[in-house]
Formats: sequence, C-alpha cells, structure tokens
Amino acid sequence: MKQHTIGFVGLGRMGSNMARCLNDQGYQIAALFDLQHDIAAELAAELDATAYSTLAEVTAHADIILTIVTDDQAMDAIFFGEDNLFTGAENRTFINCATLTPAIHTKLDKAAEAVGARCLEACMASSIPQARNGELFLMIGGNEADFNAHKPLLDDLSKALHYVGAAGKASEVKALVNMVMNINTAALAEGLGIGDALGIDLKMLCDIFSQTGANSRVLETDAEDMIQRDHECYFSAAHAAKDSGIALSLAASHGIQTPLAQATFEQYSKLTEAGKGELDKSGIAELTFQGRS
Amino acid sequence: MKQHTIGFVGLGRMGSNMARCLNDQGYQIAALFDLQHDIAAELAAELDATAYSTLAEVTAHADIILTIVTDDQAMDAIFFGEDNLFTGAENRTFINCATLTPAIHTKLDKAAEAVGARCLEACMASSIPQARNGELFLMIGGNEADFNAHKPLLDDLSKALHYVGAAGKASEVKALVNMVMNINTAALAEGLGIGDALGIDLKMLCDIFSQTGANSRVLETDAEDMIQRDHECYFSAAHAAKDSGIALSLAASHGIQTPLAQATFEQYSKLTEAGKGELDKSGIAELTFQGRS
Repeated sequence: MKQHTIGFVGLGRMGSNMARCLNDQGYQIAALFDLQHDIAAELAAELDATAYSTLAEVTAHADIILTIVTDDQAMDAIFFGEDNLFTGAENRTFINCATLTPAIHTKLDKAAEAVGARCLEACMASSIPQARNGELFLMIGGNEADFNAHKPLLDDLSKALHYVGAAGKASEVKALVNMVMNINTAALAEGLGIGDALGIDLKMLCDIFSQTGANSRVLETDAEDMIQRDHECYFSAAHAAKDSGIALSLAASHGIQTPLAQATFEQYSKLTEAGKGELDKSGIAELTFQGRS
Repeated sequence: MKQHTIGFVGLGRMGSNMARCLNDQGYQIAALFDLQHDIAAELAAELDATAYSTLAEVTAHADIILTIVTDDQAMDAIFFGEDNLFTGAENRTFINCATLTPAIHTKLDKAAEAVGARCLEACMASSIPQARNGELFLMIGGNEADFNAHKPLLDDLSKALHYVGAAGKASEVKALVNMVMNINTAALAEGLGIGDALGIDLKMLCDIFSQTGANSRVLETDAEDMIQRDHECYFSAAHAAKDSGIALSLAASHGIQTPLAQATFEQYSKLTEAGKGELDKSGIAELTFQGRS
C-alpha cells in the first residue's frame, strides 16, 4: 500500500490532518488540491507534496485520492465539473470521506466504473484529533473486494473500521448515527435549559442524568460545554442540520414519520439561520437557556 | 429506625415490592392500604401485616408511611379526601414515591406542617427488580433534617440516594430525567425504524450507535426490545407521556421552548390514545417501524 501515491482533495481541518496522519506513517502524499490554493500550497510545503491547481493533475499524480468536501454540490463539481477527478482516472481509487447523501455515492460508483476507476465511501464519525492521530471511526460502503484491497490504508486512518455494504449504505448509517446524536444533543439542551431556569444545580443534574435512563454519549461530550457556553466547533450546527436533513429524506422516502428528527432539524436550522451555524452542535443550548438568545 | 412501624399506601408492583424489600430487612410492615382491598389483604397475609380499609387507620397504625400512587389526583385524594392520611398524623412521616408534579409536593409539605407531620418526596428512577432488591435510584426532596433522620430507611431501599433540595425539587429533577430519557428513546425508535426500512442490519446499526455519538443508556436497555417487539412493561408509555407532560409544564412556566419534549409527548400520547399506553416505553417503536401500526 505504501508504494502508492496519495492525493487529497479538500483540505479543511479534517482533510489536512488526515494527510498529516498518513504522511507520518510513511505514505507518499503526492498531490494536494483545495479551492483555496494557498492552503494547499502551505500544506504541500509542510508535507513535501505538490499543490496542483487542477483536479485532473491530482488524478494524474496519485493512485489513491481521498476527497473530503462539504456537500453534494461540491462533490458533483469535483467529479463532474469541467475540470474533474475522473479525467484519466483508470485504475485510480477514490475514497470519499464527506457525509453526503447516499444518492451521490451511488451515482459516483456507477460513473467510476464507466472510466475504470473505483470508489469507496468512507463515512467518518469522528473529529479533528482523531483524524490527526489515525483514530477515526470509519464506516465503508462500496465493493467489498475494493474495501479489502484498501484495508491497510483504512486501518492506518482508523481505530474502528466497519464495512457496511454497497455504495450509499455507509452514508445511510452515518446519517442515522448523526440523526440520533443530534436528537440526543437537542434533548440534553432542553433538559439543562429547564434545569437552569428552575435553579437546579446543573452539575448535580448531570450527575443524576449520568446514573439514569437519561445517560448518553452526548451527556459526556456536550453537557459541560452547554453549561459553560463553550461552543468551539468540533461538529458544527450547520453540519448537524445537514445530516438530520439527509436522515429526514431517507425517512420520507420510506413513508416513516420522524417527528423528533424533524424538530431537531428545525432547531439546528434555526440556529444556522440566526448566523450561529458555525457554533459546535452543543450550541443548540443557546436556544433553550433563558437569556441566551 | 427498625423499631418504627411502616405503612404502605398504593400496592402496585412498585409498592408491593418495596414493602417486601423492607420486610426482608427486618422492618415491621404494620399497615397496608390499596383501593383494591384484595391486593392489600393478600400482601398482608404474605408479610404478616394488616390490611386496613381506611386511610386513617393506616396513619393510626404506622409511624412512617410510604405512598406510591399513580397521579396527582390520587395523591390529592389520599391526603385531602374525606378519609385521609392526615387524620391524626402528628409525628408521622410520609414518604411519597410517585412521580407527580412539583406543585403537589409543595402543597403536601405545607399541609403536613399544619398537622405536625413531615413529608419527604422520594422520586424513583428505577423499576420493579430494583424495588424488590433495595436497589432503587432515589432523589429526595423536602426538609434536609427530615432527610437525614430517615436516611437509614432510604438507604435500605436504594443503591443511590441523592438529596436534591426543598419539597418539589426532586419531582422537577425526576421529570427532567424522564423527559430526556423519553426523547432519547423516541430518537432510537426513529433511527432503528428508518434503518429497518433501508434494509440495514439492525444489530450492526446498534453496534455502530454504541461506538459513536448516538450511544445512550436507552440503546442498552431498549434497542433489542424495539427490534424484537418485546414491549413487556417496565415503564409504561402512558407514564412516559405523563412525565414528559410534567416537564413541558415546567418549561412553559419559564417560557422555554422545548420542541423535542413536545414531539416526544405527542408520540407517547398518540401511542396511549391508540390503546397502547400499557406497552413499555420501548413500544414507541411501533410508531416508527414499517408495517407495525
């Protein structure tokens, strides 16, 4: 695997740190691309890589290309735009790490096959430090043989690796994970917001939550931040709205009523529309604590 | 403490098993009362106690009286009805274990003082087996000196004991615990219901939930039951609706918007109105799995 040349497209905090992680482990990071060329150039200097100004050049100079973009539209642009990654892509493998709709992964999968390339979807349920340290939680969709062929690299990026099924399935699972996480976060924000208004000691309340049926992972990760109003972004409110929205579409397409997911989507959308979309998801507490909004 | 005589009012599964638990530990269970007299008579035979047909007789024959009734109305009836527990109640202690509104506990506290009795609210976040084994999770509201005076008995009933504050505060905390628990349960039901419709392996999905931000206590306790449709009742959907309703009132009285609690209340009310209020809270999955309702 390490004789391969690696490319990265989309050098936000996740992408940059995944590139650093693989570089540390002896992979040759050959080709970098970001719409903000200076970011790519800076990282290229750091990793002894090359920043290219076209996507076709990335494909030309790397065997395995990881893409980490923000949404379906950006994904469509890098694969189907005028300058795109499928140009000369025979035998290339694309590992697509953004949380997108299942539909775009299915579309990509077919288009890749037509040009003799491979696509894997790699959905991440982790954040920046895990990206940097090769400790991502990864859910992989796509052809199982392709998954097995790239397992060493995926292992080097992750501490938990799940092959979930065909293209699109990992996005489905990821959307459900984030949907449930977002609802639990919104629930916690309501519980703490009411508790605060009632003059209940919130540290004691969290302690009781943790010992009862109210316990949750987000209680561990977000309660203190909600109380302290420390909303430094690990997973943004805007992303929470997006992912809950994807889950809502999946539910609607199968005729399933999901009022909780809907209410959570509306809360995160409200936060985003109020210009607070770049707060961490814990920022939803801004809507439920008296005097905060 | 064990030289005291103990009375129980309300001999549902929780009350009966708390009485058995204290009896096992050497307390003298002296007086029992239930609206269904045959239930009281049967338990009296088992515990060598006496079943009385009036509440005043319970007060006459017990120093410490535990009440476990279903709602505010029942609570009002046993303390303020024509035949009531406050008759001759000087120096009696009432430990009130139902999840009720904070308001009724405040009202009781004042009324008890007027007749020279004491009230403690003892909110339980546990179920039948914990009641039977003296392993309740108890949150106590009321006068702190009264709490300390009755701590040995409360310890014998519980494995976790929290003094929460003045009368009414324990109910507030309990309502928030159950509100968050109910929302997390509703969230899980939506996640699994969509996953099922998408043909995702639900065991894998639960495994992934457990390793990510979607993890929660209710994932451990309710996911398997939702998948198997095993809704044997530990905490009923009707109770879930009631407790979420209490939390909604608390929120409304402080002007806090709680759309998640509202949506959850509506789901549990819908289930109850459909005649499924006696299903366990996990029964909410009946509303989110295709072909179940």
